[in-house]
Amino acid sequence: ISSKLPNVGITIFTKMSKMALEYGAINLSQGFPDFDVAPDLIDRVHHYMKSGMNQYAPMPGVPALREAIANKTEQCYGYKPNVDTEITVTCGAIEAIHSSISALVSAGEEVIIMDPAYDAYQPIIELQGAKAVRVPLTSAYAINWQSVAEAVTPQTKMILINSPHNPSGAIISEEDLAALEEITAGTEILVLSDEVYEHIVFDGEMHQSVFKSEKLRKRCVVTASFGKTFHATGWRMGYLIAPEVLTTEIRKVHQFNTFTIHTPTQYALADYLQNPATYEAVAKMYQQKRDYFLKAMKPSKFKPIPSNGTYFQLMDYSAISDKGDIEFAEWLTKEVGVAAIPTSVFYADGRDNKVLRFCFAKHEDTLKAAAEKLCAL
Amino acid sequence: ISSKLPNVGITIFTKMSKMALEYGAINLSQGFPDFDVAPDLIDRVHHYMKSGMNQYAPMPGVPALREAIANKTEQCYGYKPNVDTEITVTCGAIEAIHSSISALVSAGEEVIIMDPAYDAYQPIIELQGAKAVRVPLTSAYAINWQSVAEAVTPQTKMILINSPHNPSGAIISEEDLAALEEITAGTEILVLSDEVYEHIVFDGEMHQSVFKSEKLRKRCVVTASFGKTFHATGWRMGYLIAPEVLTTEIRKVHQFNTFTIHTPTQYALADYLQNPATYEAVAKMYQQKRDYFLKAMKPSKFKPIPSNGTYFQLMDYSAISDKGDIEFAEWLTKEVGVAAIPTSVFYADGRDNKVLRFCFAKHEDTLKAAAEKLCAL
Ligand SMILES: CSCCC(=O)C(=O)O
Ligand SMILES: CSCCC(=O)C(=O)O
Repeated sequence: ISSKLPNVGITIFTKMSKMALEYGAINLSQGFPDFDVAPDLIDRVHHYMKSGMNQYAPMPGVPALREAIANKTEQCYGYKPNVDTEITVTCGAIEAIHSSISALVSAGEEVIIMDPAYDAYQPIIELQGAKAVRVPLTSAYAINWQSVAEAVTPQTKMILINSPHNPSGAIISEEDLAALEEITAGTEILVLSDEVYEHIVFDGEMHQSVFKSEKLRKRCVVTASFGKTFHATGWRMGYLIAPEVLTTEIRKVHQFNTFTIHTPTQYALADYLQNPATYEAVAKMYQQKRDYFLKAMKPSKFKPIPSNGTYFQLMDYSAISDKGDIEFAEWLTKEVGVAAIPTSVFYADGRDNKVLRFCFAKHEDTLKAAAEKLCAL
Repeated sequence: ISSKLPNVGITIFTKMSKMALEYGAINLSQGFPDFDVAPDLIDRVHHYMKSGMNQYAPMPGVPALREAIANKTEQCYGYKPNVDTEITVTCGAIEAIHSSISALVSAGEEVIIMDPAYDAYQPIIELQGAKAVRVPLTSAYAINWQSVAEAVTPQTKMILINSPHNPSGAIISEEDLAALEEITAGTEILVLSDEVYEHIVFDGEMHQSVFKSEKLRKRCVVTASFGKTFHATGWRMGYLIAPEVLTTEIRKVHQFNTFTIHTPTQYALADYLQNPATYEAVAKMYQQKRDYFLKAMKPSKFKPIPSNGTYFQLMDYSAISDKGDIEFAEWLTKEVGVAAIPTSVFYADGRDNKVLRFCFAKHEDTLKAAAEKLCAL
């Protein structure tokens, strides 16, 4: 059997989580919380299951949830998407990204993505017979718009951005949005803006959603995640917002891909979103965890790389070891008892910067125990 | 924006359910039950949500659920698939079909599907740049293997079968499996067997799973659905079973499509499947409903078309109206107050046989009320 994705194996997240389990290591690798979903959100799901909301939801999502998403978007970014024609609930943000690229990108076309980038983008693009064109971020993980402009060709169908950025936590600024406006002005280039960490931004910074740009949102698919915001990564609840002309095409794929998502969970989230405090509290909670982790790591030889968002912290380990980052991450898991993600896997060329990614979406006790082990190195 | 699926609109199921709602019609169109999930299954989901099982499941599915699926498969069909390498839990059977075809079928290849067929198959195939080659079923909705053999070309990558068959309820026999063995022997043709109605078979007939054929299961992807078996279509729980060499490729797509499925629901189903009575009871329950509906429809001018499975019943309405079936279905919804599915949408050429599909996965009261309206015609 010939493979359509010959270069793809098991993701690094699956691999490291498995290894953490095997060696009993503290798992700061795959991005998921070790604290739980709010009990009242759980009880809402149960309530709707008991109320008989267990059959197919409408294909684009439960109307009450789409309404709540529209209101939240307006409240956060000043733009209210159309409930009927612009919002689609998906099986995690990853289905949103998959269905969008699958619907909008054709064989022979090109999609510009940044380097480093989340590992899923490139294979999804290649599955369409399209080409992922990688543009290096600066050493501070900022977007080099000059390089992006130079990467545009007549085949460029889409530019994919991700802010807050996985793995670095870098966030884009108003100037970045302006640069993206300028590059795409007068072209038919689409934008996919992966904003799954929209509510996890620190130090008084603001998430610059593409919704803030009237020009961009006309050509943009925005993907978002309840799993990340409400510590329920296993509930597989994401969504996408796009202009009607794009949503129409994306839904053609979505309806023959997952069709609809877990109905009672959709109703529960619709209720829960009514209270903005639910998502507004997230930034503060994660900033405390980030600060706690950084403080606990202070005595260590790991050098933190500044970031403004996500629940990940990059750490330079070059003062500790000469090992390549994959080898070092495996050693750390097996011998030290802490699992992290080697960042070389986010680069097209597998470049080794001697940097690991640690997930701090964990109890303070977990972070403390990990930091103690890491400080001993 | 140019469409990759120019011929696709909103599915007929979404359209008719919406129209039923709008006109207050009894909805026997889209296939979903109007009775509920077992309370103890609901409570299991709640239990696992409260126990903190709310983060990512392993990519192929929760081990306990895969183990339960393996045991169930062995018990039903005498073959125990490998828990680690052959079973993958998906977002409904539709994601299983989508991820499988997406992983295994390339541009320029051909997939043989039957005619009539479930509406999702062809667009999923076309999304790969591949061609759906339709082979007409006989007038009794049986597979014409002579025609299938003639449709095979060097480009044939896959043959897709569906038993029990949507919309007709026809089931395949041991002879069909033998014919499929013969056609594929010595070739590299894959088989996708969509068996979502495996537990809904009537009149003492047996579901002939491709698992019963040692030769076929080496080249076969089987897709299955808990939503249909446990009246939980909104929980989006399906799975696929395939040999390791195929599963490896399918998981490459699955991990970048939905990645994993609703974790607490997976754990709940793992428990529930321990008791074979849960799925063995389904055939009898639906046979009673089918018989009840047929009896109530006896005085009508609708002529039932014999079937052996699924929760659908085809009805010939040619003694009532000359209208095309789409027009008739719309009229029936608006004027008579009963929604059904026109079967022309299942044919490549949109052929009008003056046949509607009624879903009888409903309370007896619902079926009675619908039959009363239909008997008045
Ligand atoms: C989909 S598993 C990976 C979770 C995640 O987004 C990450 O760890 O980066
Ligand atoms: C996915 S909605 C359609 C449900 C169904 O399988 C049918 O009605 O045939």
